[in-house]
Amino acid sequence: MPDMTLIDRYADLIVKVGANVQPGQTVFISALVEHAPLARALSRASYAAGARVVDVRYVDNHVRRAFIEHAPEDALSETAPWVMARADALEGSALIMIAGDPDPELFADLDQARVGKARAVDAVTRQLRAQNELKVNWTIAAYPTEGQAAQVFTETVDGKAPIDQLWEAVAHSVRLDEDDPVEAWRAHAARLRARCKQLDALELDALHFSGPGTNLTVGLLPGARFTGGGLTTVDGITHVPNLPTEEVFACPDWRRTEGTVRSTRPLQLGGTIVRDLEVCFDGGNAVEVKASSGGGAVEGQMAIDEFANRLGEVALVDGTSRVGQTGLTFYDSLFDENATCHIAYGSGVTFGIDGLEGLSPDEIRERGVNVSAVHTDFMIGGPEVAVDGITRDGTRVPILREDTWQLS
Amino acid sequence: MPDMTLIDRYADLIVKVGANVQPGQTVFISALVEHAPLARALSRASYAAGARVVDVRYVDNHVRRAFIEHAPEDALSETAPWVMARADALEGSALIMIAGDPDPELFADLDQARVGKARAVDAVTRQLRAQNELKVNWTIAAYPTEGQAAQVFTETVDGKAPIDQLWEAVAHSVRLDEDDPVEAWRAHAARLRARCKQLDALELDALHFSGPGTNLTVGLLPGARFTGGGLTTVDGITHVPNLPTEEVFACPDWRRTEGTVRSTRPLQLGGTIVRDLEVCFDGGNAVEVKASSGGGAVEGQMAIDEFANRLGEVALVDGTSRVGQTGLTFYDSLFDENATCHIAYGSGVTFGIDGLEGLSPDEIRERGVNVSAVHTDFMIGGPEVAVDGITRDGTRVPILREDTWQLS
Repeated sequence: MPDMTLIDRYADLIVKVGANVQPGQTVFISALVEHAPLARALSRASYAAGARVVDVRYVDNHVRRAFIEHAPEDALSETAPWVMARADALEGSALIMIAGDPDPELFADLDQARVGKARAVDAVTRQLRAQNELKVNWTIAAYPTEGQAAQVFTETVDGKAPIDQLWEAVAHSVRLDEDDPVEAWRAHAARLRARCKQLDALELDALHFSGPGTNLTVGLLPGARFTGGGLTTVDGITHVPNLPTEEVFACPDWRRTEGTVRSTRPLQLGGTIVRDLEVCFDGGNAVEVKASSGGGAVEGQMAIDEFANRLGEVALVDGTSRVGQTGLTFYDSLFDENATCHIAYGSGVTFGIDGLEGLSPDEIRERGVNVSAVHTDFMIGGPEVAVDGITRDGTRVPILREDTWQLS
Repeated sequence: MPDMTLIDRYADLIVKVGANVQPGQTVFISALVEHAPLARALSRASYAAGARVVDVRYVDNHVRRAFIEHAPEDALSETAPWVMARADALEGSALIMIAGDPDPELFADLDQARVGKARAVDAVTRQLRAQNELKVNWTIAAYPTEGQAAQVFTETVDGKAPIDQLWEAVAHSVRLDEDDPVEAWRAHAARLRARCKQLDALELDALHFSGPGTNLTVGLLPGARFTGGGLTTVDGITHVPNLPTEEVFACPDWRRTEGTVRSTRPLQLGGTIVRDLEVCFDGGNAVEVKASSGGGAVEGQMAIDEFANRLGEVALVDGTSRVGQTGLTFYDSLFDENATCHIAYGSGVTFGIDGLEGLSPDEIRERGVNVSAVHTDFMIGGPEVAVDGITRDGTRVPILREDTWQLS
């Protein structure tokens, strides 16, 4: 399609492969005001796919900054009725979230406890439920902004400004540089699904990460399956929740994380960059959080509710990752988490677990699956980090060595 | 306040004089994505005034364009539940709407019937009710954009680009160039209120406009008072609904408009510019609409409901108007309607009418006050248009001659 601009081809990929918008669907788009060019292209692409109505909600982080600074304490975690009504409408709809923060340190000088608290908890919980129950076909994709480009690239190379270099890196990461990106995604997704089958066949009891500053055991749930390469809604709509995606992931048992872990990449956390994060777990709880900067934002998030400091995801990524191969830190979890192995504190990813529907949060937690209003990934993998599987009889199975996948 | 930037001083005026935001209030802001700099300044100014939460809803006219082009017919006038929930929350809150269209002809090539139909009727009706029942302190102010500047000014003058010239014209129109804009507004509002008293004392039965292409009689309601210089909510919050405002206005009897009227300024109507509009009224109905361009957008709006083609406002503006004195057409009704006399088709302005609360739309219409989901002003005044009042005994009282106010 040589006459389509890059942004229109990108929007087309996001709508067709990412969210897989169906005729007659309402399409919800969440974007920053700085993402308007992509939001507009996504609207056009969604209507071309047969959307009934496209509803774009623009967030303005400068308005959020004033909110975090000045709103009364009890307003910070509130969900307004109109925000809740929109979250209630997600079931049966398509959802496209645009990532890519033009000013990743906008909140760095604010009270980090308030930064952590500032989220519409009820609406986020409602959205996470719709996603976990596979009732919405959704995706997250990034829009490269000048601000992010300036973080990732410091100078013009071969006449290419930082923003052009970032677009190139993004286009490569999401396979837009392939002749047929949709077909390239089909093959890539099949490869990730094959890995899930390899892992599931091992019937692992735990994963173990070891490397500099890291000695971490993450207990897995009996019967929990690995997921990767996309999801299928209860209505049968296949979709790819992250563009790019390079991970296979599973839900840990929130009661069985033990040891210490050192993050291997900076973490961009809603306006704050967390550097040199180290977390110590005891009986599933994150009992100690250290960082050279931004640690307060992690502690603030972990204090949002009683279960925010327990793990909800563990994910494996090897060195064939297109994101990892760029060698870049994007200061954006959507990319950085797909560069290497990661874990997430907060709500559990329930895609690979049967029989949870209709259970209360307490009942879900009794099954070993965490429920929280938080879900934050941080990166713990890399060539120096070895990953083993531990089976129920205690056998150790090498899974990653020097970023190379060991199973076949 | 020499250390405050122009935009922050402007936001301060809008928050303090326009909406008059009160401590503890929720502040709703409606803006285009292109208005983000002002929306951000308004958020800061609102929190400084004690706002509890500021909720900015960004509209993107390019997303709306795709909606108007592609959404199914029955979706065009729908109100989504989350949009309705936000409209329901307006009562008791403050509302700031930012005007100023960067691309006033964005919808000009679309099907004008669909352009006219595309509005969330239930939410608009709910908002108009809150405004008419004086249950929200609200204001509209403009943000000068490059696109609008390019429409108004064609070249750089004295080293000033069009956008700088537009900012100057806006700052003059809203009295930001005064040493103490808040005090200047107090004096200006008092002047407009004095005019209302002069008009009310005449106990007029009708207004008559005559000039080139215009011979129009607008019947007034017995006991309807003129309004100008601001409103006061049922909770006692004084506010100035338009910045700038130069008008005194009253509600016509929707059944008693007769004759023809020729618009004296172009009308910007949601992405379409209507030029050389002429409307013929018979028994209150607009029975014929002509225009050299954009007439279809007016006809589309008048077809939204059965009462959209009846008048809901008549307003008088004289040559002392700061907006009129700029000699400019802003292609934005907020400014253009304050340059000269105007009428509006659609819902009646009920501020000067007692005893409507709790009545049904039919009962309100029985009182002679129009109820519709539309309210669109267009400009009919100027030095060549004479305005007379007609008293109940048939006496003609000159009100405007050559743009000069005749009452004292």
